[in-house]
Amino acid sequence: MSLREMPEKEVLLKSKVHHFAVQIYYEDTDFSGVVYHPNYLKYFERAREHVIGSDRLSQLWNEESLGFAVYKADMGCFDGIEFGDIVDVRTYFSIDGKYRTLWHQEIWRAGKAKPAVVADIEMVCMNKARQLCPLPQKITTLLTE
Amino acid sequence: MSLREMPEKEVLLKSKVHHFAVQIYYEDTDFSGVVYHPNYLKYFERAREHVIGSDRLSQLWNEESLGFAVYKADMGCFDGIEFGDIVDVRTYFSIDGKYRTLWHQEIWRAGKAKPAVVADIEMVCMNKARQLCPLPQKITTLLTE
Amino acid sequence: MSLREMPEKEVLLKSKVHHFAVQIYYEDTDFSGVVYHPNYLKYFERAREHVIGSDRLSQLWNEESLGFAVYKADMGCFDGIEFGDIVDVRTYFSIDGKYRTLWHQEIWRAGKAKPAVVADIEMVCMNKARQLCPLPQKITTLLTE
Amino acid sequence: MSLREMPEKEVLLKSKVHHFAVQIYYEDTDFSGVVYHPNYLKYFERAREHVIGSDRLSQLWNEESLGFAVYKADMGCFDGIEFGDIVDVRTYFSIDGKYRTLWHQEIWRAGKAKPAVVADIEMVCMNKARQLCPLPQKITTLLTE
Repeated sequence: MSLREMPEKEVLLKSKVHHFAVQIYYEDTDFSGVVYHPNYLKYFERAREHVIGSDRLSQLWNEESLGFAVYKADMGCFDGIEFGDIVDVRTYFSIDGKYRTLWHQEIWRAGKAKPAVVADIEMVCMNKARQLCPLPQKITTLLTE
Repeated sequence: MSLREMPEKEVLLKSKVHHFAVQIYYEDTDFSGVVYHPNYLKYFERAREHVIGSDRLSQLWNEESLGFAVYKADMGCFDGIEFGDIVDVRTYFSIDGKYRTLWHQEIWRAGKAKPAVVADIEMVCMNKARQLCPLPQKITTLLTE
Repeated sequence: MSLREMPEKEVLLKSKVHHFAVQIYYEDTDFSGVVYHPNYLKYFERAREHVIGSDRLSQLWNEESLGFAVYKADMGCFDGIEFGDIVDVRTYFSIDGKYRTLWHQEIWRAGKAKPAVVADIEMVCMNKARQLCPLPQKITTLLTE
Repeated sequence: MSLREMPEKEVLLKSKVHHFAVQIYYEDTDFSGVVYHPNYLKYFERAREHVIGSDRLSQLWNEESLGFAVYKADMGCFDGIEFGDIVDVRTYFSIDGKYRTLWHQEIWRAGKAKPAVVADIEMVCMNKARQLCPLPQKITTLLTE
């Protein structure tokens, strides 16, 4: 069952939305004239880093040897994004059990009625040996408060 | 319904498999020590370009103003990939109707019993104005022969 | 003669400095733990795009078929930059004749007495056929006012 | 004094040339239609990794905590490189003293009389704490044999 059908999805969309602006530079585009699709995953990750905080992520990695890894990413790309655009990355998130965080993320171009790109992303917590670990309490608290 | 449940999926996996080797360089990794996940989508695209041929893709773009765009990408990331690895990207493909091509792609590390990363990707054919176009006959022939 | 010895360099460093902040994300680092060096050129370009304005760059490209290309880039990398850092990209610029713009750019980490990275970059103006073109008047005015 | 004027340069160009092929994919280009310039530094690095060997680089990092960092990179970009091109990266190298390796690298498009891109790159050897270290004997031997 994909994240799209998950019961958690409804809960997820009821969470607070986090907004993050991304400006599209030369580096983001390819010769077709629009953003190269793997870069969408970069913008989603930048937004998630802002939700959690890069200081908190650094500390977890350096002091507790814990990090987060993408386990699943389901993405739909409905509209092209152009050089010079400043898009709004909207992020919804929730905790699913001891190990997983769920993220619904959308990229919105200015003045549009629908998102250009949407994604459902599952993250798991891992140590430096890439073994699954329970989410640290401070992350659970942060994402559910 | 996700691609995972699609009836076409079975057909897809009966198609010929295309193998493509990717060596992992510094540029592919991040500070966690393994490949940065959006790069998987790059390797999948490189492999698809080899299936179709970059000369054919250039010609379609320059002479007929046609290109291919990722419409959906569902990815599962099960194992980390390390600097120096040479992975095998396995690509299965089929045509779905007049407009869509379906791709099942896997990244295999040497000596492993399971793929490190799997993805189901839908591509559509578009002109330079980003309008949906029927697949050119030469592409349909190429992908079904 | 490298840009380092150029008489214009002194003039260049007397120009106004432009500040641009860049946050370092996962995507910027490699497995050695610091920023992957080609990314410095990305940050320098983002900063130059902010000096000129991406709206102005889009308009020049779409309406006058003109763009800017890096002709030379001399870079010194003296300190590593880490995940979570927010660096200050300092940009000095001047016009050199009809065709060239000169840029001296530096990346500063917070609280440091010296820049982590410095670069001298020459840009030329080109049309879509990649033929050298004189700088448009509006760019000359913008960069010398 | 830039690398261009260095006495070592002549010596360097007398060393054996190493050839490495790079195919240009969607990911390499930007909306101007040619390769995005920071990517040239990626190709140069891939070529250097092939000169030294990624197994040797992994081993140095994992067992001796040693790696190589770009200290200076001087690049000239004279011709655009297009989607579908397969370019030849030519690499010349030498040792300069106890700490530095010097690299002269060029990117050649098929059938051209001049390189599209040239670079002079200085690398230094560092430990994981980013302290300068003498080149390991096996690297000195490898690069001078």
